[in-house]
Amino acid sequence: MTDRPDTPLLDTIRIPSDLRKLPEHQLRQVADELRAETISAVSVTGGHLGAGLGVIELTTALHYVFDTPADRIIWDVGHQTYPHKILTGRRDRIRTLRQGGGLSGFTKRSESEYDPFGAAHSSTSISAGLGMAVARDLSGANTNVIAVIGDGAMSAGMAYEAMNNAGARHERLIVILNDNDMSIAPPVGAMSAYLARLASGKTYLKLRDIGKQLTSRLGKTIDRTVTRAVEHARGFVTGGTLFEELGFYYVGPIDGHNLDHLLPVLKNVRDADFGPILVHVVTQKGKGYAPAEASADKYHGVVKFDVVTGTQAKAKANAPSYTKVFGESLIKEAAKDDKVVAITAAMPSGTGIDLFEKVYPARTFDVGIAEQHAVTFAAGLATEGYKPFCAIYSTFLQRAYDQVVHDVALQGLPVRFPIDRAGLVGADGATHAGSFDVAYLGCLPGMTIMAAADEAELVHMVATAAAFDEGPIAFRYPRGEGVGVDLPAEGVPLAIGKGRIVREGTRIALLSLGTRLAECLRAAEDLGALGLSTTVADARFAKPLDLDLVTRLAREHEVLITVEEGSIGGFGSFVLHALSDAGLLDGACRVRSMVLPDVYLDHDKPEAMYATAGLDAKGIVAKVFEALGRGAVPAVGGVLRA
Amino acid sequence: MTDRPDTPLLDTIRIPSDLRKLPEHQLRQVADELRAETISAVSVTGGHLGAGLGVIELTTALHYVFDTPADRIIWDVGHQTYPHKILTGRRDRIRTLRQGGGLSGFTKRSESEYDPFGAAHSSTSISAGLGMAVARDLSGANTNVIAVIGDGAMSAGMAYEAMNNAGARHERLIVILNDNDMSIAPPVGAMSAYLARLASGKTYLKLRDIGKQLTSRLGKTIDRTVTRAVEHARGFVTGGTLFEELGFYYVGPIDGHNLDHLLPVLKNVRDADFGPILVHVVTQKGKGYAPAEASADKYHGVVKFDVVTGTQAKAKANAPSYTKVFGESLIKEAAKDDKVVAITAAMPSGTGIDLFEKVYPARTFDVGIAEQHAVTFAAGLATEGYKPFCAIYSTFLQRAYDQVVHDVALQGLPVRFPIDRAGLVGADGATHAGSFDVAYLGCLPGMTIMAAADEAELVHMVATAAAFDEGPIAFRYPRGEGVGVDLPAEGVPLAIGKGRIVREGTRIALLSLGTRLAECLRAAEDLGALGLSTTVADARFAKPLDLDLVTRLAREHEVLITVEEGSIGGFGSFVLHALSDAGLLDGACRVRSMVLPDVYLDHDKPEAMYATAGLDAKGIVAKVFEALGRGAVPAVGGVLRA
Repeated sequence: MTDRPDTPLLDTIRIPSDLRKLPEHQLRQVADELRAETISAVSVTGGHLGAGLGVIELTTALHYVFDTPADRIIWDVGHQTYPHKILTGRRDRIRTLRQGGGLSGFTKRSESEYDPFGAAHSSTSISAGLGMAVARDLSGANTNVIAVIGDGAMSAGMAYEAMNNAGARHERLIVILNDNDMSIAPPVGAMSAYLARLASGKTYLKLRDIGKQLTSRLGKTIDRTVTRAVEHARGFVTGGTLFEELGFYYVGPIDGHNLDHLLPVLKNVRDADFGPILVHVVTQKGKGYAPAEASADKYHGVVKFDVVTGTQAKAKANAPSYTKVFGESLIKEAAKDDKVVAITAAMPSGTGIDLFEKVYPARTFDVGIAEQHAVTFAAGLATEGYKPFCAIYSTFLQRAYDQVVHDVALQGLPVRFPIDRAGLVGADGATHAGSFDVAYLGCLPGMTIMAAADEAELVHMVATAAAFDEGPIAFRYPRGEGVGVDLPAEGVPLAIGKGRIVREGTRIALLSLGTRLAECLRAAEDLGALGLSTTVADARFAKPLDLDLVTRLAREHEVLITVEEGSIGGFGSFVLHALSDAGLLDGACRVRSMVLPDVYLDHDKPEAMYATAGLDAKGIVAKVFEALGRGAVPAVGGVLRA
Repeated sequence: MTDRPDTPLLDTIRIPSDLRKLPEHQLRQVADELRAETISAVSVTGGHLGAGLGVIELTTALHYVFDTPADRIIWDVGHQTYPHKILTGRRDRIRTLRQGGGLSGFTKRSESEYDPFGAAHSSTSISAGLGMAVARDLSGANTNVIAVIGDGAMSAGMAYEAMNNAGARHERLIVILNDNDMSIAPPVGAMSAYLARLASGKTYLKLRDIGKQLTSRLGKTIDRTVTRAVEHARGFVTGGTLFEELGFYYVGPIDGHNLDHLLPVLKNVRDADFGPILVHVVTQKGKGYAPAEASADKYHGVVKFDVVTGTQAKAKANAPSYTKVFGESLIKEAAKDDKVVAITAAMPSGTGIDLFEKVYPARTFDVGIAEQHAVTFAAGLATEGYKPFCAIYSTFLQRAYDQVVHDVALQGLPVRFPIDRAGLVGADGATHAGSFDVAYLGCLPGMTIMAAADEAELVHMVATAAAFDEGPIAFRYPRGEGVGVDLPAEGVPLAIGKGRIVREGTRIALLSLGTRLAECLRAAEDLGALGLSTTVADARFAKPLDLDLVTRLAREHEVLITVEEGSIGGFGSFVLHALSDAGLLDGACRVRSMVLPDVYLDHDKPEAMYATAGLDAKGIVAKVFEALGRGAVPAVGGVLRA
């Protein structure tokens, strides 16, 4: 598993200018070595494999034809950029991918000048690229801007907005549509079907057809070699009308694994003196690695694996994941109520909606990477008496914020928002952190927001959301596995806006929202050992706030600390507001609010990230001591954890 | 001006079922009377005129052909629905449009069962409609769902997301594309150009061509009268490929003012047993009212006007609008720095970018109704060293929240966000309120947020934003005119994160963010008269917070009240957090935070709305008394205002 592949030619390449010194006929070997090195690296680190393998040739060709970093290559999403990282000065760190302190699993401006735009969320590349192209023209420069976007990402509205804008302008902009008929799940939607028709059973353009197409579209800029190759081409129909109607010159479909096709096309679009141009490149996800080719879904994201057998190291699971608990709980609610329906925006497996779909296919809606539409579609269902569970990660729900505000909350429609990946998410890093949802939802009148302290709580919150029909309701839960508590046979709706006392004490009160409850309990033990009897409560609801509970905790304790897996402006703020309004901040209780720090935390193991954030037992105890004005926490033998 | 038109036929119609009793040949007269009544009503109330006049015939035809309210008509944006409101039981209140306590200027579910989906922001109708169509099919019902969407709204990504989803499904869904070649400003983008090609110089389908098209597309469902009419049609080419590639059946273009064309088409698409179908209807904004036809831009939204002359009542301006001050200030900054560029999402006049465009057309970018793209396009420009001012209303910036988070803030890119329409906005109501921006932006690490207390402050904030290059910076200001202060000849950058003391006192401190400063000063006067010497400070920055100022105010006063034109989770929360962290909530100062109430406030005059919210001098004084535990405010003769 740790044997490194033999890569004599790749070893001569540190940055793309080294690549560009090679003769064209050696690029096939470069690509083969790059593929082997990518597989080897990901076998050690885990991460996104299939997407990178699909663009080995494209990555090689792009850096060969274009003058990076002066020419800007913007990789949409960025999870396909491990080969790009290997070719752009980061090979020495490629086996630190997604590890704490190591390379990001996405493009990142601070990491390399070859990453002109950071990404991780999809469908941003054309917008960013058009901005760069406009800037170039305003500056009178003559560089190239290339956005590489997948077919799955084309279902998102912002990609269309960008094409609609770019297609009506005249900046030279090259969009490479990397069509692998996959995003994470098979893509859905009319655009996907349209692309499939264009690619029409993988009968790519032949070289002479490419030349013909380029000739007809790019006119005088055509490469002469290609011109000769197409002299006899006849009766060729291009397709591509949709993109042409949107103002793009369409070239394709091209076999994205054939360098002899990629190189002349890229050279020609590079040398074209107008824009925008869309190059439709067809690739295969996982290309060149048999296990990944055979199961593109399973090799989209992988853990460490054995290169020879393809066997992925099985992570030891101590408890079911929150995702799975959600999916299974929703199935149970749906069995009781045929109005329950489920919506996902291209993340069926990530959200657990795949489990639901197996049981209730007709009540499951995968709308594609289209969070805005997902939410308003759910709102439409809700107006007709359905109970839509619109399952979107915390970070991606940001894409549908206005729809939550304008279409759901303002109309008081009972759309249910299961919010997975709340809080810090580990290896995916800052771009995927679910830090803000309580703040951005909590400010909305009429929104009900819960956070599960453990997987049993999640079961009850699914039941609560199913039963609650008075307005929108959201419930958040983290990535990863639960804490291992017994799961109830059936979810029981919780009292809206009521928390619970988990541990009774007298001097200190810790009020947790979400899964920091376990750390609060650990902190309470430590505090007890230090002579500070501590109450621990689980707020369950960020909104409406349990005023009785909050008031009681403030009245009966010397210190009240709120703890949450979220930013400022959320639960802690609501508690402070409520207490200040009630005049309870003027009294004896010292209230403090512990939230995520005001920085973007780099990827690492989640618990390491929470320790950095001070949101672990140790940090909580320290906060209590700070509130008491006691200074450093004494190191009572064995009680306090590192 | 108050003379009502003679409307004998319209007078017989209270709800659409009355309309449906009339013979078809009388509908022309109904439409004419409906047009006259619409003009008459808006002449009294002001509001959106041109859009409604453009859909008089369409509104009449839709309610005639479809069985509303069982059939769902979803009007995108909803500002074109005054005629719809007249026909659906609201004629008796039509002269209360947009007035406090009166009808909303948009569709609103709580207002009528004929408004199945509320709107005001654009491009939501297809998503909502698909949700309703899916619900109908799940329920086994057989009603119709019709989304009516303008061509301008088609530039927004969520409309595309919805079409992409609908086009791959089989629900019967009718989308009426109301193509008037206008949104508020002339629409931009490739889709708009495409639609113009389809409409091709307004050579609409002739009746027999309509029949031919319907025959070829709808097959056996074709109306027999039409079939006969088209027997001899030959060589007919439809166009519409883009929509067809996206899975829709395309019918059009149809003359949207010709009832003889609209009625058979609508009947046929109603009776078609498949979907989705897109009907491309071409209309003229302002149709039938000469002044509005002549100047669609000026008659998009009007104040009261004289029906005969078209002369709009000139509002007395005491001071320039914040919008204008912003636009003119930006021009000055651009003169000093050629990296300054401006971006608007289809709101050039609303944002003041129209002023900028006149001087710097090559540095102005109207990207269409496409806030997501606008922000990431700006981010792309910022990566190349430009200084983009991305001017989007507070409420519409919600559409681009993830782009602000993921593409701008996370990368620390210095995009400038001028946020107009911050706080309550008056007649446009809750859908347009700029209540949440400080909360949803303030939780983001690295974001700098200012709020202007008056128009002179705004000038300096534009200069501050132009000078600040370390990350994203936003500055908010309200709708309407300034307070009348002298404007500085030139903006001077403010010290980042520093507020200012405006009035010195000893016992009470009022800390304002934004234009409530004037009310704070009035409250301070009143409090002084009541023996409570009051300090007033202008925070200027919501983030970073002026800790020195906040600390000093808390230390030196008995009461500290924060006042802002925003929701919970914003400035007041940041102050409470900071003070609790500093241990300053444990001391003698009573801190209170005044924010917008946790409800959606209906449209009214802004000052009436702020009074309702308690965010006026009277409310502030009351809050001080409440904090002091003094109960009701004594009515000192003449001091306190009503």
